[in-house]
Amino acid sequence: MATTQVLAGRSMVLPQPLPLDSGQALAPVTVAYETYGELAPDRANAVLVFHALTGDQYVASTHPITGKPGWWERMIGPGKPIDTDRFHVICANVIGGCMGSTGPASPADDGQPYGMRFPVITIRDMVRAQVALLAELGIDRLYAAVGGSMGGMQALSLAAHWPQLTDRLLLVACTAQMGAQNIAFQEVGRQSIMADPNWQGGAYYGTGKAPDAGLAVARMAAHITYLSEASLTEKFGRRLQNRDSKSFGFDADFQIESYLRYQGISFISRFDANSYLYITRAMSYFDLAEEHSGRLADAFAGTTARFCVVSFDTDWLYPTEQSRRLVHALSAAGAAVSFVELSAPYGHDSFLLDVPALDRVVTGFLAW
Amino acid sequence: MATTQVLAGRSMVLPQPLPLDSGQALAPVTVAYETYGELAPDRANAVLVFHALTGDQYVASTHPITGKPGWWERMIGPGKPIDTDRFHVICANVIGGCMGSTGPASPADDGQPYGMRFPVITIRDMVRAQVALLAELGIDRLYAAVGGSMGGMQALSLAAHWPQLTDRLLLVACTAQMGAQNIAFQEVGRQSIMADPNWQGGAYYGTGKAPDAGLAVARMAAHITYLSEASLTEKFGRRLQNRDSKSFGFDADFQIESYLRYQGISFISRFDANSYLYITRAMSYFDLAEEHSGRLADAFAGTTARFCVVSFDTDWLYPTEQSRRLVHALSAAGAAVSFVELSAPYGHDSFLLDVPALDRVVTGFLAW
Repeated sequence: MATTQVLAGRSMVLPQPLPLDSGQALAPVTVAYETYGELAPDRANAVLVFHALTGDQYVASTHPITGKPGWWERMIGPGKPIDTDRFHVICANVIGGCMGSTGPASPADDGQPYGMRFPVITIRDMVRAQVALLAELGIDRLYAAVGGSMGGMQALSLAAHWPQLTDRLLLVACTAQMGAQNIAFQEVGRQSIMADPNWQGGAYYGTGKAPDAGLAVARMAAHITYLSEASLTEKFGRRLQNRDSKSFGFDADFQIESYLRYQGISFISRFDANSYLYITRAMSYFDLAEEHSGRLADAFAGTTARFCVVSFDTDWLYPTEQSRRLVHALSAAGAAVSFVELSAPYGHDSFLLDVPALDRVVTGFLAW
Repeated sequence: MATTQVLAGRSMVLPQPLPLDSGQALAPVTVAYETYGELAPDRANAVLVFHALTGDQYVASTHPITGKPGWWERMIGPGKPIDTDRFHVICANVIGGCMGSTGPASPADDGQPYGMRFPVITIRDMVRAQVALLAELGIDRLYAAVGGSMGGMQALSLAAHWPQLTDRLLLVACTAQMGAQNIAFQEVGRQSIMADPNWQGGAYYGTGKAPDAGLAVARMAAHITYLSEASLTEKFGRRLQNRDSKSFGFDADFQIESYLRYQGISFISRFDANSYLYITRAMSYFDLAEEHSGRLADAFAGTTARFCVVSFDTDWLYPTEQSRRLVHALSAAGAAVSFVELSAPYGHDSFLLDVPALDRVVTGFLAW
């Protein structure tokens, strides 16, 4: 049994410019990543984990800024469902991100940060960078690719455009096509950032001012969509925050208000507002059917991978119906697919939280 | 048959200071209102219509700023469900508002606008001002009180605290208690306004700068919650706005983005940001059960009015479950109550839109 090995702060500069869906190319491209567990001599045990909108490569190790545990430590580690005694887990920061991979804060040709000169990227572009990383790492086949939320979109893009690269795809709480309501919520977040005078057209790096207020509001609005109405009621209801009665003022009287403000404020310490713009833009552009003449099943033509699709009954951001549509398309393409809707109270965030049934599904699928 | 009479720009200065739930008092208080249809000689045909968060007294007449038709013209007028050939309809701007009733933009004692010196008000305070208006108008009993959304909350507050004042209460798409998710969405809106440097702690009147950007973002976020996911998909889906392909930029590529931006921009022309803060605060404070020792049924003890409660199946802001809870409480209080969940595709906004079944319910209830 291999011992778990955690290597922090890794990154790779890609040897070639990265072609983008916009027609532009990005160079140089750094991809920051973390790995957990040893790569087997036959290189057949690699599992690529894609992160979600506000995630990063610190999937199973302490976050260098917040000091908090990795965002999926409950899933990844020795003896855990994605068992690092068995698998070599790779998780890379997406391009456009802000944790080491090339993004809007990175220097452009003139040595100044890109800001809004950074090209608009797509989910496929994010995956393309990670496929190039795998090539540099000498990994030409994955045991599995795994992702939740935007991570699931990346996994779907991998399945559609690099169908020979992975044997298994685990898609959790995601969609093959961003819907109007989600586009709308993300547009609100972008408008909130761009309305902040400190945004300065995206050229705020080094000015000592960043659109923190706009980014915090964007995060607050988005955070509501990650939780179920029932879990908000259960967790907060109308309970007051550190007081016996309403203040008749605009302080955070209610616990939910205090919680949301905290979510906003803690987010800005670890995230770059321009990255939020670019990554949400990539998500809003995501439509795997459109990339295949409008027929989603065609995205998976000829795939030989095994798929597992998981949705949560309280997820109203990517509701089960969207997973069902995906499963229909996979089935129409003749793919081997299992599908389960799990019951969990936490809404979209269920994929990150304590849902033992998800652990069992992941364990079972990786043994398939 | 009386002819319809539309009188524009009416207002009344209340003769007494208005006591507030905060313990403060507000004086002087102006209540701006509109009336439609003639008051019968026996004064028994008055119908009070309460407006929602962003509504106003122009319920059935042209809005003086936007030039658009009244917000419920489909419901109120000669021969319409609330028939102005038969009823004398009164609709008043809430205190805290910005269409003529005393609010944060009104002058305080020192002649300067209140700004954030305006006292925090409650839904009951809003109703108290309208009850005082009715007294001044010589109306001591209503044929009916009617309201949707926040208007429904006001009608509920009237039923609970002035139970002898009305014979009928029509409550559409509302709740007796603001839930955590709604508090959360409204907190995002307030934070968006208060994060705008032009807000200036609320003292922006006369400075030539107003927190328009923050208010627009607040409106955009709220607007999403007024619509159903299905109606957004039906109306906008992923259709592009005046272009054949994505711009790979941050313009409003999608129709839903363009629509939301328009909603934000058009809102700021007719609404005051501080009013938005105060009115949403009043909504978040609304909990009719809490006002009655936690037992909602007690709010309606001894009521002799007839109630009609209407919800919409696609309303996820004030879902049917909340109406059902209200109906249970009314029933437990021995009230005469009818309850219907209508099927309509438009989400919360269904109460304002073309839902013929609602017309029939209103017509029938007012004939009861």
